[in-house]
Amino acid sequence: MSKPQVELLGISNAIVDVLCHVEPEFVSQFGNPPGSMTLIDRDDAERIYDMMGPATESAGGSVANSVACFASLGGEAAYIGRVAEDQLGRIFNHDMASLDVDVRLPEETRAAPTARCHVLITPDGERTMQTFLGACTEIAETDVTVDTVGAPKLLLMEGYVWDTPEGPAAMQAAITHTRAARGRVALSLSDSFCVERHHEAFLALAEGDADLVIGNEGEVRALFGGDDLDTVRGRAAASGKLVVMTRHEHGSEVFQGKEHVVQAADTVDRVVDSTGAGDAWVAGFLFGVARGYALRDATALATQCATLALSQIGARPQPSALAALVSD
Amino acid sequence: MSKPQVELLGISNAIVDVLCHVEPEFVSQFGNPPGSMTLIDRDDAERIYDMMGPATESAGGSVANSVACFASLGGEAAYIGRVAEDQLGRIFNHDMASLDVDVRLPEETRAAPTARCHVLITPDGERTMQTFLGACTEIAETDVTVDTVGAPKLLLMEGYVWDTPEGPAAMQAAITHTRAARGRVALSLSDSFCVERHHEAFLALAEGDADLVIGNEGEVRALFGGDDLDTVRGRAAASGKLVVMTRHEHGSEVFQGKEHVVQAADTVDRVVDSTGAGDAWVAGFLFGVARGYALRDATALATQCATLALSQIGARPQPSALAALVSD
Repeated sequence: MSKPQVELLGISNAIVDVLCHVEPEFVSQFGNPPGSMTLIDRDDAERIYDMMGPATESAGGSVANSVACFASLGGEAAYIGRVAEDQLGRIFNHDMASLDVDVRLPEETRAAPTARCHVLITPDGERTMQTFLGACTEIAETDVTVDTVGAPKLLLMEGYVWDTPEGPAAMQAAITHTRAARGRVALSLSDSFCVERHHEAFLALAEGDADLVIGNEGEVRALFGGDDLDTVRGRAAASGKLVVMTRHEHGSEVFQGKEHVVQAADTVDRVVDSTGAGDAWVAGFLFGVARGYALRDATALATQCATLALSQIGARPQPSALAALVSD
Repeated sequence: MSKPQVELLGISNAIVDVLCHVEPEFVSQFGNPPGSMTLIDRDDAERIYDMMGPATESAGGSVANSVACFASLGGEAAYIGRVAEDQLGRIFNHDMASLDVDVRLPEETRAAPTARCHVLITPDGERTMQTFLGACTEIAETDVTVDTVGAPKLLLMEGYVWDTPEGPAAMQAAITHTRAARGRVALSLSDSFCVERHHEAFLALAEGDADLVIGNEGEVRALFGGDDLDTVRGRAAASGKLVVMTRHEHGSEVFQGKEHVVQAADTVDRVVDSTGAGDAWVAGFLFGVARGYALRDATALATQCATLALSQIGARPQPSALAALVSD
């Protein structure tokens, strides 16, 4: 029996964030550019953790953050992501279920440990990420069936899943089941390096099965190419898809054929923590899309969600604060 | 072979905090007074966790927080507390070891799960705690030997440990080994309900083996009795011990025979998070005591540590910020 229809089904790498404040030298010793996300193996994860200072743990992951925020806004949401039956896996699934997100994969007993992302925060606020994918790498095509996908109005796929062995096949299955149920398909580009790693696949999606393509300026540029921003804009518009391009303090732009929405960012007195601001933006935007808002109104709600995320600590703003945005 | 001498050895319940923002009704349904700490069993812990919203996890525990801050100040510290060999236990011990605290008990494979404290934070900032002691209840007299205690200058005992079956015997062993090494013994009173639960034992310590007695106003009052504050003060002074009484925004007072230090609290523009402020105070004070500061100077450093804790999120202020207090 299929799961009931939800407004949003997210499929992504299910990750617990391990946040630690470090000095710039701590980051530079690994040779990864500040702000980047690097995949590491279990031994390196242990090694980095041993070197790290005291940390704070909380459920994270880009699309998972968006799904959590979407549910906090009052949207009906479901989630597919692979965690192990360990304490971090329990934390991840708890935090989703506590927001009434329908968690469609149970914790897996035989899996590698639940994924974690070591988020190294330098005094300038930059975050450099070292991710051990663990159980995420075990997501299989057989996890993504007509039963687990159900009939979502919107499917949100995370680009990072293409980094896992069966991720591309699993995503194709998700697309097939969503399309069969007349749902729409959104691709989150994840990061510009991820777009470079999977450029052919992502471009094929943008020209084919994806109805929405979501990314920040760097990611959209990496996908469509273009030396200057107007060229990128032109190609996004020419794709014929609903293309979202977030631009941090420069606001956001949405393209759909001839429609071009430009939304300024809110003035934020003090950015407390930028983590998850983009993910919250996506949640607000997709909530508007799912509820049939005009693009301008969906973009405005998205911006309010991002502003809220900037004013709070952590990747996922307080559910009550998000709910208040749509209760007026 | 005994462990090398350290300045501070803490023995306490090793707990991971699970922090969640809730509405007042969520707290009141359990019938526990706002601000209280209640011990719960595993089933209740599961039940409360299932009812709770999204949470953040970080290493906590009162005396453990003090030990962590003491080490951040540059003090030589060691720690005895029981965690299980699970992910939360690993997180707890990692956070200690990362500050160069000598963790003297390894994670226990056969133990109950690592303890967690569900910290329910209401919009007024009040924190109500529901604690599942798990592995902490398994601390045994045999864990507290001449090898694990070594020869600390200061032993800091947490009152809460008296809530565990072998806790009192384990603490007696710690006292014996510390005294044999000519160290001094400090008792942290933990909370006023804890003082009421173990009043006879704590008073016997205050009149006997303890050199220092540490608590807030309510705890010191619960221990010594007295209808008005001056009576409490008189009894604290008459005990002949070094007695610390913290008084939140009213500052702190220290008694030692005829010496009576009164320290005003710093003016804090904005209290970001009061969690751990008392624990940080104790760390600063004991650092001063261990280094032979005059009582007035130890109390002043303690106050600086508490002020720092008030200005930061979480139970343990940034190590670098604490270190900066004593590097000038």
